[in-house]
Amino acid sequence: MYRVTFEPSGQSVEVPEGTLLSDAIARAGVAFNLSCGGQGRCGRCQVIVRQGQVRRRSELRLSREQVAQGYALACQTVIESDLVVEVPSQELVAHTVAGEKAAATVAMPDDAGNWRADPFVTRYSVEITPPSLDDNTNDWDRLQRELAAVDGIERLRASLPVLRGLGQGLRDSGWQVDAVMERGTWEEEGAVARLLDLQPRGTARLLGAAIDIGTTSNVVYLVDMAGGQVLDTASTFNGQISCGEDVISRIIYARRNGGLSHLQELAADTLNQLLDELCRRNGAQARQIVRLAVAGNTTMIHLFLGIDPQWIRLEPYIPTVNQPLPVRAVELGLHAHPEAQVDCLPSVGAYVGADITAGVLSSEMCRTEKLTLFIDVGTNGEIVLGNADWLISCACSAGPAFEGAGVQSGMRAVPGAIDEVWINPRTYEPTIRTIGDRPARGICGSGMISALAEMFLSGVIDKAGRLNRSLNTPRIRDGEHGPEYLFATADQQAGVPDDVVLTEVDIANLLRAKGAIYAGFSVLTRSVGISLADVEQVLIGGSFGKYINIEKAITIGLLPDMPWERFRYLGNTSVRGAYQVLLSRELRRELTEIAQRMTYLELSADNSFMEEFTSALFLPHTDETAFPSVAKLLRQGKGELQA
Amino acid sequence: MYRVTFEPSGQSVEVPEGTLLSDAIARAGVAFNLSCGGQGRCGRCQVIVRQGQVRRRSELRLSREQVAQGYALACQTVIESDLVVEVPSQELVAHTVAGEKAAATVAMPDDAGNWRADPFVTRYSVEITPPSLDDNTNDWDRLQRELAAVDGIERLRASLPVLRGLGQGLRDSGWQVDAVMERGTWEEEGAVARLLDLQPRGTARLLGAAIDIGTTSNVVYLVDMAGGQVLDTASTFNGQISCGEDVISRIIYARRNGGLSHLQELAADTLNQLLDELCRRNGAQARQIVRLAVAGNTTMIHLFLGIDPQWIRLEPYIPTVNQPLPVRAVELGLHAHPEAQVDCLPSVGAYVGADITAGVLSSEMCRTEKLTLFIDVGTNGEIVLGNADWLISCACSAGPAFEGAGVQSGMRAVPGAIDEVWINPRTYEPTIRTIGDRPARGICGSGMISALAEMFLSGVIDKAGRLNRSLNTPRIRDGEHGPEYLFATADQQAGVPDDVVLTEVDIANLLRAKGAIYAGFSVLTRSVGISLADVEQVLIGGSFGKYINIEKAITIGLLPDMPWERFRYLGNTSVRGAYQVLLSRELRRELTEIAQRMTYLELSADNSFMEEFTSALFLPHTDETAFPSVAKLLRQGKGELQA
Repeated sequence: MYRVTFEPSGQSVEVPEGTLLSDAIARAGVAFNLSCGGQGRCGRCQVIVRQGQVRRRSELRLSREQVAQGYALACQTVIESDLVVEVPSQELVAHTVAGEKAAATVAMPDDAGNWRADPFVTRYSVEITPPSLDDNTNDWDRLQRELAAVDGIERLRASLPVLRGLGQGLRDSGWQVDAVMERGTWEEEGAVARLLDLQPRGTARLLGAAIDIGTTSNVVYLVDMAGGQVLDTASTFNGQISCGEDVISRIIYARRNGGLSHLQELAADTLNQLLDELCRRNGAQARQIVRLAVAGNTTMIHLFLGIDPQWIRLEPYIPTVNQPLPVRAVELGLHAHPEAQVDCLPSVGAYVGADITAGVLSSEMCRTEKLTLFIDVGTNGEIVLGNADWLISCACSAGPAFEGAGVQSGMRAVPGAIDEVWINPRTYEPTIRTIGDRPARGICGSGMISALAEMFLSGVIDKAGRLNRSLNTPRIRDGEHGPEYLFATADQQAGVPDDVVLTEVDIANLLRAKGAIYAGFSVLTRSVGISLADVEQVLIGGSFGKYINIEKAITIGLLPDMPWERFRYLGNTSVRGAYQVLLSRELRRELTEIAQRMTYLELSADNSFMEEFTSALFLPHTDETAFPSVAKLLRQGKGELQA
Repeated sequence: MYRVTFEPSGQSVEVPEGTLLSDAIARAGVAFNLSCGGQGRCGRCQVIVRQGQVRRRSELRLSREQVAQGYALACQTVIESDLVVEVPSQELVAHTVAGEKAAATVAMPDDAGNWRADPFVTRYSVEITPPSLDDNTNDWDRLQRELAAVDGIERLRASLPVLRGLGQGLRDSGWQVDAVMERGTWEEEGAVARLLDLQPRGTARLLGAAIDIGTTSNVVYLVDMAGGQVLDTASTFNGQISCGEDVISRIIYARRNGGLSHLQELAADTLNQLLDELCRRNGAQARQIVRLAVAGNTTMIHLFLGIDPQWIRLEPYIPTVNQPLPVRAVELGLHAHPEAQVDCLPSVGAYVGADITAGVLSSEMCRTEKLTLFIDVGTNGEIVLGNADWLISCACSAGPAFEGAGVQSGMRAVPGAIDEVWINPRTYEPTIRTIGDRPARGICGSGMISALAEMFLSGVIDKAGRLNRSLNTPRIRDGEHGPEYLFATADQQAGVPDDVVLTEVDIANLLRAKGAIYAGFSVLTRSVGISLADVEQVLIGGSFGKYINIEKAITIGLLPDMPWERFRYLGNTSVRGAYQVLLSRELRRELTEIAQRMTYLELSADNSFMEEFTSALFLPHTDETAFPSVAKLLRQGKGELQA
C-alpha cells in the first residue's frame, strides 16, 4: 500500500501499488474531472508529481520539459511509491462563493400558496398515555390515537423499518415524542399521513434539500423546512463526467455492462458529497433531511433513478417516464433520512427536462402576460416560448462547444479561462480578460462568444467564419489543425502548457452550435405564427447565461437582435424551481400543470429546421435584415477604419 | 470437506470437518427438529450413523448398545469423515397427506362478496400503440393511457424496480403485454392501482399464498387467484423451533444479540421452503405469486416481520401493532414476486392473534345467531365466545404440555405416537393405539387426554392426579423422576430407546394445562353473565382439535360437559381464514371488523381466574355437578367392578 497526498488540499489516501493516479484522486474525494472519461485522449487531467515514483503510460500533450517538471496525466499514470501530487487548483470547484450569493437572495414567491400552513412534512410533539392492563391498546394504534387528536389524521402509514423501531422509540422517550409526519404530494394521498420518524420530544429538526443535477454541475440547497430559509448551498462537478461529458456519451456509457448502475452510483455519490458537506457545515445530521426535490434534464433524472435512458437517444426519443413516481432516499442510497421522499420534478419530453419546467416555474414566465422567450443553454439549448396562457418548447442539439468540448483551447468558466476579448481592428492584436486575472489557459463559453464577435467585427474572420489570411498579422497562422488565431502564448512557468488559439475547425463548431440555437428560436416562433421581434422579454437561465455578454451574443447571431433591456439573466433557475416545490404544495401542482400544458416541438420532425439551421451558420445570419444593430456596427467599424 | 448423505431421503451436502451433524442436516434441507434448540438436553434429535466417523460430545439418553449401533444426538455430534446418516423417518414431516385432503374441501363461502369481479390483483392484456415522432408520449404515460381505456384506472403507481424494467419490457414484448395490477386493500387506496409486473401478453399467471405461521407448524396453500382454487398445500415445522418451542422462549431468544433477525430469517426460510416446494410441484415460478395473506399468533407475526415482540411478554402485554401495514415480499425475503403484497391479518391483542380472528372468520361463528364457543388449543389456549352480535376472547397460558413439552414421553402427533389408550379397570393393563401403527415411542396430546381419562376412570389415578400405589400392578412403579405408569417398554430393535410412561409430574403439568383452559371458559362465560350450559355449539380449531376424543376430553374436565353433538372439529381454521381474505375484499373487511369488535379479557387482570384455575386442577373438577356425564361414568365403572 502506498500513501498518496494531494496538494494543496492536504487530502490523502492509501492505495495498492499499480493503482491509477486518477483512481486514487477519486478515492481520496478530491474534486477532479476526467473530461474524456479516462481514455487519455483529452490531456486535461494534468497533475504535477512533486515526490515519488510513477509510471506514465502515455505522455500525450505533455512536452519533455513538462514531464521533467513532474507533469503527468492522472488517468494514464500508475502509482509506484508513496507520492505527493499537486492537483492544479483550477480544477477544484469554487464550492460556495456563487452559492452563498444565491442563498441570500432566494425566497419563496408571493404566490406560493399557504405553504407554511400545509407543509409536506410536519413535526408533531405528543405526550402519549403509557399503556396499562386497563388500556392495553397496541403501540401503533396508541400513537395513531394521539395523532388523530392532534391533527385529525385519518389513517397513518409507516414503513416496516419505522414500525420496527416503534416500541423501543416510544419507551426510550418516556412516551413523549416528536412524530415526523409526511402528507403525500398528491390529492388522493392527502387523507393518509406517513410516519417518517420518531424522536424524543423537542429534538426533531426538519431539513430539506433542493437539488439540480446538471450534466456538468450539481447544486444542492439545504433548506429549513419550517421557516423556508435556504441555510446553505453547495455545488460540485457531476461525478458522471468521468463517463462522458454530454448526455449522449452518458447514455452510451449506460449501455455497457454495469454502466447504468455505475452512473446511478456516481449520481448518488456526487449528491452525497454535497449533502455531507452541507450537514457538516450546518451541524445537521443526514437523517434530519426529510424531503428532497430534484430537478435535472430527462437523462440526468433517468440515470439518477437508475432507469435505462437508451430510448431517449434513439428515434422517436422516448423517455421511460416524465413524472417519476416518488421514491425514498434509501432506494437511491442518498445520505438523507432513509424514508425521505425524493420528489423528481416532471419533464416535458426526452430533451425538455425537469430543469426546464423548474426554470419556467421559478422564472415566473408561466404567470406573466408578456410574450416571453426562456432559454437555458448548456450542452443542449432548450427554449420555451409563451406566457401564462400557453407554452411551447423545443431542444436544439447545440453540442458542447460553448462548454469547451470540441474546441482546442476550450475550457469551463474557471480561473485562467479567457472570458472577454477585444481585438484592435487596425493591428488585429487582442486584449483579453481572464477569470481570476490568472494567466490565460484557455477560453470558456462567454470568451468564445466575445472572441467570435470581435474577430468578425475586426475582419479577422468573414461571415462564414473563415480566417482572413491576407491580413498582416502573425496572430493568424497555420497550426497543427489548420489555420488558427493566437490569443495567448504558452508559458510553462505560469503553468500554461499550450498556446491559446481558436482554429477554423473550432469556429465551425461554434457556428454550428449558435446556428442550432438560433434556428430553434426561428422555428419555435414561426410554429405559433409570430415573429421573433414580437418577443417582449428574453429570460436566460442556466449557468451559461451568468457571464454572457449580450451585445456580443447578438453580434454573432446567437441571440435575436432586440433591445438589451429585454434580456434578463436569472442564473440557476432549475435549483430555484426545485426549492420552491420542495416547500409549496401549490407550486408543486403548478409545476405539474406546466409540464402537462407545455407543448413539445420535435425539431427533427420539423421540415423547416434544417433550412433555418443552414441560414444561421453565418455571422450573424444569412438574413442580415434580422440583425440591424449588427449591420450598424459593421458599418461603424468600416467607417472607423476609413476615418 | 466431507460429504454427508442422509437416508432415506438420499439428500446430501458437503461440509467442512468439524461441522455439527445438526448443522449439516439443516444445510442439506432435510426436515429435522431440534426440540431444545440444540443444547443436547432433550435427547430427541437422535440419528443413526450408518457409515463414517463422528465424535460424540455427549451421549445423554443414549445407551451403550445404542451408541454401538450408531445412534447419536445430531446436535452433539461432530463430523469427522464422509458419512451416511439415517434420519429416523418419524421426524420427517408428513408434508401433504393432511394438506391434500384440506385442499379438496376448501372453497370460498357463499357470502364472500363479489370477489371474482373485484380482485386484489388482476391481469390486463393490452396492445399498446408503439411511439412515433408524432406520438412521443413517454412509456409510463403511454401504458397508463391504455390501462385507463381498459378499466378506468385513474392513477397508476409502480415501484422503482418495476419502472426500471418498463422500457425494456414494453419493447421486448412488442408492445403487447400482460399488466399485473394490484388494487389496494383499503378504501382510500381504491382509486390508485399499482403495476406489479409486466409480462409478454398471454403469459402472466396469478397465484397467491395463504399462510398460517403456527408456533409449531407452518402451512401454505397455493391458490389460483383467478379461479380461487387451492391448487396444493404444504406444511412443515416452524424452523424457529430450534430457538425455543413456545412463544415465550422465542421472545426471550429474540432479546439475544442478533436473535430477532435470526428468528425473522428462520420464519422466512421455513415459508420459502414451502413456497419453493409448492412452485416445484405445480410448475409455477416464485414471481407468479403476487399476493400473500398471513395468519399466525401475535408473536409469530411480529417475528415474521422482524418486529421486537418483547413487550408482548411483559405486563401490561403490549404488541407493537395489531393490524400490520402491508409490506412487500422483497422486504421480508420471501420467495414470491418481490412486489407481492404481504397482508398480515389483524390480531386482537398480545395473546389473541390473527390465527384466532382468521378462525372466527372461517368458522363462521361471526355470522351465526347461535351462542358459540370457539377454541384453539395449542401452546396457548385461545377462547372466543359470542356470535354475530358480539365476541369476547381470552387466552389461557396452558403451556406446551399437550404438545409434548414438559412431559417425559411427550411427543407430537407423528407416527409412533400413542394417540389413544384404554385401561382395563380390573387388570390395569393398557391397550394402546399409535399413529401409523408403529411401535410406541411416546404420547401425543390426544393420547395424553385419553390416558388421563382412562387412568382416572380405572382408578389408576385419583381426582388429584396421584397414582394409586396400592394397586396390584407392575405398571405403577417408581421411575427416575418419581412414581410413573408404564404404557410401553423400550425396544431398541424397533427403534424405541425409552420406556413410554406418564409420571406424576407429567400428570400435574397436564392438569395445570387443562385447568387453565377450563378456567378460561368459566371466567369468559361468567364475565358476560351466562353459564357454560347456555353455549349452543363448541367449535374446535387448530391442529390439536383434529385428533381429540371429546368424550375423554370431557372426562378429564378439559372441555365442558355437554352433548357431543354440540362439538365440531374444524381443523386449521387459521389458514382457511387467510385463504378467504387472500381472495375476498368483502371478507378482508369483515376480518378487520371482527378484530375491532372482539373484546379481549386479560385473565391476569381478572381476580376470579386464579380461583377458577385452582378449582379446575382436579379430575374432572372440584365442582362435580358441572360434569354429570363423568359422574355417571364413574358410577358405571364402580358398578361394573362390583358386578
